[in-house]
Amino acid sequence: MKLASLKHGRDGRLVVVSRDLARYVEVPEIAATLQAALDDWANTALHLRQVSDDLNAGRRDHDAKPFDPAECAAPLPRAYQWVDGSAYLNHVELVRKARNAEMPPSFYSDPLMYQGGSDDLLGARDPITIRDEAWGTDLEAEVAVITDDVAIGTSAADAAKHVRLVMLVNDVSLRNLIPTELAKGFGFVLSKPASAFSPVAVTPDELEGHWHGDRLHLPLRVWLNGEWFGEPNAGEEMTFSHADLIAHLAQTRRLGAGSIVGSGTISNKDRARGSCCLAEVRMIETIEQGKPSTPFLKAGDTVKIDMWDSDGKSIFGSIEQTVVLA
Amino acid sequence: MKLASLKHGRDGRLVVVSRDLARYVEVPEIAATLQAALDDWANTALHLRQVSDDLNAGRRDHDAKPFDPAECAAPLPRAYQWVDGSAYLNHVELVRKARNAEMPPSFYSDPLMYQGGSDDLLGARDPITIRDEAWGTDLEAEVAVITDDVAIGTSAADAAKHVRLVMLVNDVSLRNLIPTELAKGFGFVLSKPASAFSPVAVTPDELEGHWHGDRLHLPLRVWLNGEWFGEPNAGEEMTFSHADLIAHLAQTRRLGAGSIVGSGTISNKDRARGSCCLAEVRMIETIEQGKPSTPFLKAGDTVKIDMWDSDGKSIFGSIEQTVVLA
Repeated sequence: MKLASLKHGRDGRLVVVSRDLARYVEVPEIAATLQAALDDWANTALHLRQVSDDLNAGRRDHDAKPFDPAECAAPLPRAYQWVDGSAYLNHVELVRKARNAEMPPSFYSDPLMYQGGSDDLLGARDPITIRDEAWGTDLEAEVAVITDDVAIGTSAADAAKHVRLVMLVNDVSLRNLIPTELAKGFGFVLSKPASAFSPVAVTPDELEGHWHGDRLHLPLRVWLNGEWFGEPNAGEEMTFSHADLIAHLAQTRRLGAGSIVGSGTISNKDRARGSCCLAEVRMIETIEQGKPSTPFLKAGDTVKIDMWDSDGKSIFGSIEQTVVLA
Repeated sequence: MKLASLKHGRDGRLVVVSRDLARYVEVPEIAATLQAALDDWANTALHLRQVSDDLNAGRRDHDAKPFDPAECAAPLPRAYQWVDGSAYLNHVELVRKARNAEMPPSFYSDPLMYQGGSDDLLGARDPITIRDEAWGTDLEAEVAVITDDVAIGTSAADAAKHVRLVMLVNDVSLRNLIPTELAKGFGFVLSKPASAFSPVAVTPDELEGHWHGDRLHLPLRVWLNGEWFGEPNAGEEMTFSHADLIAHLAQTRRLGAGSIVGSGTISNKDRARGSCCLAEVRMIETIEQGKPSTPFLKAGDTVKIDMWDSDGKSIFGSIEQTVVLA
């Protein structure tokens, strides 16, 4: 099934969206918000699925309304947890290579993750609001999952069962603030402003045969100012699976329902597939030409992120954002 | 006024607590949860304050009930944001000195902060649950504030107005996991499990003349296994005020209502005042004796954190936790 949160108050209004993203029905009798549904997933999922089945079978034509991604908040407009990984080591290798740094061997066995802010998550068509273009604003196109409750010490095999929803994310980064901030040693605080999420979050079964090995084996498609920018496959070169990332976190603490766990920027070794962030393009330019030539995002620039099924149909709806100055 | 969340569901049940922490009244007609109150603070605060005034004046004797800190969840049992600073530079200087590292000059003007997990915040009497004593479990006694909505670009002077509630926190750290995790460069993920909060959160006016300069000028008292451990003053040597920390965050992003911003471990130069974490004692031992002799927390160890007003009365109620193995 496919779920969205229409803009409404601080937490949105939960709706069930048809598989073709054309229509939705409201479900106040099941849960007012997606967080409320996740808080009681064992119960609510059954009822939501029934609505989804009815909607897709044409049995809710009487009360279905046209679905407009522009009306969407993030599936979770604010969340109790947003943690992001760096599961695509090609990306990490390029970062290191561009600054002539060694790749620590532990990076191939111990996932790199950071705790992000989750008090302000953007809808798919919300602007990227920055105060200064000199901060070096970048997109980062990723796949993220939402979990229900995960107990401390949960293994990767068990963690897989806690992947309840999947969505796309644009993890906006302020690249020029990162070196100074990371040098302080405590991770990202200023350099990771609000991230944006796809209009809908979907259960793994909606991904047909493309979800296996706890990875989503489809290209993630990115356009910048209307031009093709990249389409690396999100499954093939994902060193750590979504379940691995959840299990990594659960080593020392339990995760609350509605925790969002991101994959990190999708990246493939095949450069013909393009990139999912400007930093990667700039790293390749640095490696090949000695310095970067592609600029970071400026006010007015547009970013589009989408993923298609085998028939070329959008699965999650597209993230489409414009950069604006605060 | 003083507010608490009695254990109830995932978000607790909001109650108003008397100044002497003896009694409480339920306030479902105002807000079901503290988060709901913070979401509409301009409205709810007035009504909550009236209840508080009535309770303290004896006008709610008919429906006030005995207050028991053991029934408390964290004031926000889960929050949309928990960010912690390192505002007491004596602590940071000792960390550096113990490993013969230089103190970067920027640390005196640019606050060090980290984004913490906020999906699981512990009540004042909840156990510290660890899976392995070898992780080096430590307490960190701090002061934290809760904000309402803070706009991007808010100055420190304006940020001061967004401090709605103040509370105590035990920011549990797994010290032996920190070096490896910080070496990865992305901050704390595994090494900062769930933090615990004082039974009540209070508005700054409850702190009488002790809240000025956006700092809380009272000793924070810590006991370990029933023995005095420290009582450094939380105001005097706080390099960055609570307002400074909020403004630091707001440079690149807005903060959602209910954001919790911590001070970092309280620390004073006067060693007779003791410490607010074991790591600091171990650093002093390392500086003075070449190696640490005080162990980290073991199963069965108890931690108590409290703060008293001028009459020796507890302001927030005490955090009292026992370490247990998962």
